[in-house]
Amino acid sequence: MRRQPVIAAIDWGTTRLRLWLLDAAGEVIAGRRGDDGLTSAREAGFSAVLESHLAALGASETLPVVACGMVGSRQGWVEAPYVDTPARIDAILKGAAHVPGERRDIRIVPGLAQRRTDAPDVMRGEETQLAGAGLPAEGRHLACMPGTHSKWVEITDGAVAGFGTWPTGELFSLLATHSILRHSLGETPAPVGADNACFRQSCKTALAESGDITARLFSIRAAGLLQGLAPADAAATLSGLLIGAEIASAQHRYGRPDGAITLIAAGALGLLYQCALDLAGLPFRLVDAEQAVRAGLFSAARENGMIATTEPSA
Amino acid sequence: MRRQPVIAAIDWGTTRLRLWLLDAAGEVIAGRRGDDGLTSAREAGFSAVLESHLAALGASETLPVVACGMVGSRQGWVEAPYVDTPARIDAILKGAAHVPGERRDIRIVPGLAQRRTDAPDVMRGEETQLAGAGLPAEGRHLACMPGTHSKWVEITDGAVAGFGTWPTGELFSLLATHSILRHSLGETPAPVGADNACFRQSCKTALAESGDITARLFSIRAAGLLQGLAPADAAATLSGLLIGAEIASAQHRYGRPDGAITLIAAGALGLLYQCALDLAGLPFRLVDAEQAVRAGLFSAARENGMIATTEPSA
Repeated sequence: MRRQPVIAAIDWGTTRLRLWLLDAAGEVIAGRRGDDGLTSAREAGFSAVLESHLAALGASETLPVVACGMVGSRQGWVEAPYVDTPARIDAILKGAAHVPGERRDIRIVPGLAQRRTDAPDVMRGEETQLAGAGLPAEGRHLACMPGTHSKWVEITDGAVAGFGTWPTGELFSLLATHSILRHSLGETPAPVGADNACFRQSCKTALAESGDITARLFSIRAAGLLQGLAPADAAATLSGLLIGAEIASAQHRYGRPDGAITLIAAGALGLLYQCALDLAGLPFRLVDAEQAVRAGLFSAARENGMIATTEPSA
Repeated sequence: MRRQPVIAAIDWGTTRLRLWLLDAAGEVIAGRRGDDGLTSAREAGFSAVLESHLAALGASETLPVVACGMVGSRQGWVEAPYVDTPARIDAILKGAAHVPGERRDIRIVPGLAQRRTDAPDVMRGEETQLAGAGLPAEGRHLACMPGTHSKWVEITDGAVAGFGTWPTGELFSLLATHSILRHSLGETPAPVGADNACFRQSCKTALAESGDITARLFSIRAAGLLQGLAPADAAATLSGLLIGAEIASAQHRYGRPDGAITLIAAGALGLLYQCALDLAGLPFRLVDAEQAVRAGLFSAARENGMIATTEPSA
């Protein structure tokens, strides 16, 4: 018998979306990716964009949809107001906002806000990844979610106690594209591999110097002029400095957790963070970022009663 | 009697130039500014650009010219090869490169290179400012030259022992223009004043946290969303974080000098650094950046025998 989808799960960000049809066990039946993130979806209409993706997957007209990410921001489809820290992860999911006026049931998971005046911060989408990452229900844990705006989250007994954002990916991109370092890295910076000696060396340097790397950024340019540093090695050096500095800074802020850090990542970036955490002597367990967001969305659908639970009722 | 110019002094950088006619005492007779830095002068021809500025000031056809800055780089007019650290300041000036094929005597002061593999660095133009800043001939001193690429220089007994570059101005501009913070700072960020409470507070924070500010950058965005931080205050916060971090990092690298730091700066940026050094508890003496580069160029002209010395011979 062909498995039937019970929910469409969508991770809808600023520049792209990923959508899956999931069965009653949360397994993927079909999936799609699109470049119609917030910016283009605002013009085309969120409902039209969503319906066209669902139609392409042959989804029924009544299949419910659960979403997370920037689609729930003030600039998105319907604002799903932030839940404030400290917040239990299941409580965050339960607060999904309903999209009115649609024929199908559509809900958007809220983001998370840290309203501390000394360290205000926000996230949208990562809270859902976190919910799907299988964090232990007890103890003090740390999760690291690398990306354009890397998030580090402190979880105590199943609740988000606090979090911070290190704009590591954005800094890499800005420096590689718009700064004087663009002359050193070349027009299209080579993808950085964790086996690159310059990546490892600069990561160690950043860790040893507690993330104090600003003067080392210009040194990449000088090393190109004085020592013939190759563009690929310049890119690797920049990446190592920035990732090492992020880890040093997060360690300084959060200290050591109980047990391994939960690294929620994928692909080449995941490999770089694994290497950097090894160099920092920090044990970690790797959770695939895409699986995590899917599992989180599936949990959100359940928490909001959008799908029948397969668990026996008490 | 009208004073006669004995030298034309020119600070010729990537995007602009400043030129002065100086008399035998090094005093300014006339001056000009232009936007014909390297990028446009390479197209128009360096000689043509220089001659048109000199003609506009009524300079004679034989007046010698001494220059510093990126005009002496490989991409400039004539390469004035780097002098390596450690280097006596008078010896740097003496190494000026001659521009061949011109009817007048034109020389370009070399830049400075630090070829240490753990901290390669270069400067062009700042060595001339340094030469004109009246640093004590003995003892261990620190100079701070704020800008797009701020330089901190350690001078021991009249020689540059080492230096570093903090790309503070470039980071501010990149973050304000191209990063997610542009939404918080507004289209044309307001000029930041040293009396802005957000500048002072974020500067203190950066100093207290040893320059570990990366996660605080995103907090500026979050403070806009959660706490209504105004664009002008967002710009001031960014500026305070970056300048505070630069000072903390330079302090970490160079420690305390003998006596006051020589701050070679001008205008609004100079006021911000004065405020930040005060907050850091670091005594300084202020030297005007334009006066310093002029005095340095005048010294270079003398060291290269381009003008008769007014000092009595021994």
